[in-house]
Amino acid sequence: MSDVSLPHDLVVHGVGGGSIIMLVMDGLGGLPHPATGLTELESASTPHLDALAGRSSLGMLAPVGNGITPGSGPGHLALFGFDPIESMIGRGVLSALGVGFRLQPGDVAARLNMATLDGDGVVTDRRAGRPSDEDGRRVIEAVVADLRPPDGIEVTLIHEKEHRAVLVLRGAGLGAGIADTDPQRTGLSPLPVIATGVDPESARTAGIVQNVLDQVRGILGKERQANSFLARGFAEFSPYPTFEARYGLRAVAVAKYPMYRGVATLVGMSVDGVPSSNPDTVEMLEGHFGNYDFYFIHFKDTDSRAHDGDFEGKVAAIQEVDALLPRITALDPDVLIVTGDHSTPALYREHSWHHVPTLIASSWARPSADVFGESSCRGGDLGVLPGKDLMSLALAHAVRLDKYGA
Amino acid sequence: MSDVSLPHDLVVHGVGGGSIIMLVMDGLGGLPHPATGLTELESASTPHLDALAGRSSLGMLAPVGNGITPGSGPGHLALFGFDPIESMIGRGVLSALGVGFRLQPGDVAARLNMATLDGDGVVTDRRAGRPSDEDGRRVIEAVVADLRPPDGIEVTLIHEKEHRAVLVLRGAGLGAGIADTDPQRTGLSPLPVIATGVDPESARTAGIVQNVLDQVRGILGKERQANSFLARGFAEFSPYPTFEARYGLRAVAVAKYPMYRGVATLVGMSVDGVPSSNPDTVEMLEGHFGNYDFYFIHFKDTDSRAHDGDFEGKVAAIQEVDALLPRITALDPDVLIVTGDHSTPALYREHSWHHVPTLIASSWARPSADVFGESSCRGGDLGVLPGKDLMSLALAHAVRLDKYGA
Repeated sequence: MSDVSLPHDLVVHGVGGGSIIMLVMDGLGGLPHPATGLTELESASTPHLDALAGRSSLGMLAPVGNGITPGSGPGHLALFGFDPIESMIGRGVLSALGVGFRLQPGDVAARLNMATLDGDGVVTDRRAGRPSDEDGRRVIEAVVADLRPPDGIEVTLIHEKEHRAVLVLRGAGLGAGIADTDPQRTGLSPLPVIATGVDPESARTAGIVQNVLDQVRGILGKERQANSFLARGFAEFSPYPTFEARYGLRAVAVAKYPMYRGVATLVGMSVDGVPSSNPDTVEMLEGHFGNYDFYFIHFKDTDSRAHDGDFEGKVAAIQEVDALLPRITALDPDVLIVTGDHSTPALYREHSWHHVPTLIASSWARPSADVFGESSCRGGDLGVLPGKDLMSLALAHAVRLDKYGA
Repeated sequence: MSDVSLPHDLVVHGVGGGSIIMLVMDGLGGLPHPATGLTELESASTPHLDALAGRSSLGMLAPVGNGITPGSGPGHLALFGFDPIESMIGRGVLSALGVGFRLQPGDVAARLNMATLDGDGVVTDRRAGRPSDEDGRRVIEAVVADLRPPDGIEVTLIHEKEHRAVLVLRGAGLGAGIADTDPQRTGLSPLPVIATGVDPESARTAGIVQNVLDQVRGILGKERQANSFLARGFAEFSPYPTFEARYGLRAVAVAKYPMYRGVATLVGMSVDGVPSSNPDTVEMLEGHFGNYDFYFIHFKDTDSRAHDGDFEGKVAAIQEVDALLPRITALDPDVLIVTGDHSTPALYREHSWHHVPTLIASSWARPSADVFGESSCRGGDLGVLPGKDLMSLALAHAVRLDKYGA
C-alpha cells in the first residue's frame, strides 16, 4: 500500500491551514423515481444543501471504479484518500476495528458466525436461528469463560450483533493466509481450517484456529442452536499511514455506528465519544470544533432506508440532515464537503455502482448550480471524480497543499 | 496481460444474471457539419435511438486514451473490457483471425502485401497495382502450389483482399521478434528479414521467413506486377482469457466483416453464421437470443461512408440502424448498449481520437436526455468513460457483479 493520491514529493502544509468537515450521508446517490424522474436527493426539500451547493464546486464521485459496487470499507477508504483496491482491507480486521478493539500490528482477526450443526456435524443453520443480541452475547461469554488459549497466544472473542462475533489472535509469528471454514450452504460440514499461504506462520495459525474452533464445539455442545462457529475473512492487521502522517491533519470521527468508527480509527482518526442520534452527532461535532483540523461526520439513515426500499424514508433522512446543516455551516469551516461512500438507490435496495453527488464548499469553489442533486452534480466543475482524489481536493481547498514543481 | 478492468478478487456471478446486447456502429462518433453545427449522429433522424436514450445512462467513450486514434483491433478490445494497450495484439494475428484461420498458441502470423519489384530488386509498387480480389487469389494459389515449406514448419498462406494476404507459420520453437520487410516507400529494396528479438526462436524464424519470401520471388518471377511479397506485423498468438472465463458470459458475435468476427473469436465469443446484410444481422441476433448471455452485433456502414467523406451517407447508415432498433428492443434484453469502437468523422475521413457517444439502457440507468448524440452524451451520467470500463458497467447493469469489499 502506498501513498497513491498525491505525488509523493508533494509537500503538505502543517496545521496552519484551514479546517475541513467531511459530511458523509451513507449511500447518498440514488436512482430516479419512475413517476417523477427525480432521485431521492432531488425529491427531497433541501434548502440548506441547495444554498451550500451555490457556493460549492459540484461533481460526481466514483468511489472505486466504473461498475464497481463498493462495500462500506472500500467506500470510506476512498473518501479518506486511499486507493480502495491497493489498500483493500480484510473483513476480519474491519470487523475488529468496528467493535472498537484496538488491534496491534501482527494481530490476526476473523469474522465468526454462530451456526447450528446436527449430530453428524453437518451445518443445518449458518446463522444459528439468528439469536437476539442478548442471547448471542451470552454464547460468547460462555465460550470466553471456558476457552483455554493455546500456548503463547492471546485469544479475544467479541460479540458483534445477533449471530456475529469477531475473533482476534495475538502472539508472535501469526499469519492470515487461511481459508474460510464457512461452507456457504447448509447440508455440508464446516470446512477444516486450511492455510492457503505457503508461509509457516499461516500453517501454524491454521492449527491454532482449528484448536480454538474444536474447543468451541465442546464448550457449546449443549446449546440447541448456537453450537459451533464458522470463521471467515482472516486478515492480519498492519497499520495504515495516519491522517496526521499522510496529510498533516489532526482528525476526529463522529459516527453512530461502529463500522465507520472502525475505518476512521484505521487511518488514525481520533474517536472521542459515540453519538446516540443525528442531532447528537452535530452536537459532538460542535464540541470538537477547533480542536482538530479534519472532522468526519457520518449519517447512516439514508443507506438504511434505501436498503428497506423506502424511497420516501430516504428522502426524509436526507431532509433531516438538511435541517441540521445550519448548525454545521455556523461553525464556518474553511472547507465543507458533502458526499456519500457509495450510492444505495431505494429502487435497487442495495449498494450500487452509480456515482455519488458531491459538493465542496469553500471560498475557492467554482459554483455551477443552486441545487444539490445528481443532475446538477453531473454538470459540475469536478466532473466524474475518482473517490481517492477527494482528499487532495479537500486539502487544496483548505490551502494546505504546496505547488507541485517549480 | 492481466484482468485489468475488474479488481482481481471481485466475484463475477455465473449465468444467473441478465442478458446484454452490445450494438456497435463502427466509427460512430463524428464532427459537426460546418453548415449546421450538428454531427452525423445529431443530423440523423433517430426516433428509436432517442427514445432509448431516454431510459439510458449516457456518456462519452474514450476507447484508448486522449488523443489516441484506435485501430479496429484496439477499439474492439477496449469495448470487450481489455486494456487496449496492455493487451495490444499484433496485426498479423488479428488478420489471421479476421480471415477465419483458427490460430493455435505459438503460431506466428504476419500480413503480406503483394508488391512489384523491378529487375534490380527495387520496389516500384508496394501494392502490385492493386490486383482484383480474383487476381490476388490466383497469385496466392500459385505460391501455395509450389512452395516447399522448411523442415518441420507448416506454412499457411491465405488471401485476404486485393493485394493483401496473411502468412501463418506453425511449428515448435518459433518467435515473432521480426522486423517488417516493407521499406514503406518505392525506390528501395525490400528489407531483409531481421530478428529484432535476441531470442534464438525469433532468429530461427527470421531465417524461415527469408526462405519463404525468397521462394516466393522465384515462384512469382514471371508475374508482371505481383512478383514478390512484403511482410509486416509479425506476431505470435497466445490466447486471451475468454468472455466465459473472465465474465461468466456465454457470448456470441454477429458481424458481417471478418475482422470483427476475428476480434470476437479472440476473446472467446462464438460465431454461428455470417450475416449478409444489416437486416440479416438483426435476424441472426433474433435467432440466437436466449441461447447466450452476451450478444455483440456490429454494423460497418457508418465507418465506411465516413472514410468516403460522405457525411449524408453516414447519416443514412445511422438511420438504417435506427430503423432496425425496434426489432432489437423487442427482444427486451436486460442491458442494451449502443456505442462505437472509435470515431470516424466524415469531415476527417479517417478514424479519429474523438470520444464516442454511448448509451447503456437498463432498469438501473440514470437518464439525462431524450436524445442520442455527442452533445447529450457529453452531459450524461457516465461522464468520459475509459473504453475498457464499459464491460464493468455492462455487468453491473445486468446485476452480475458482487459488491467489492465489506
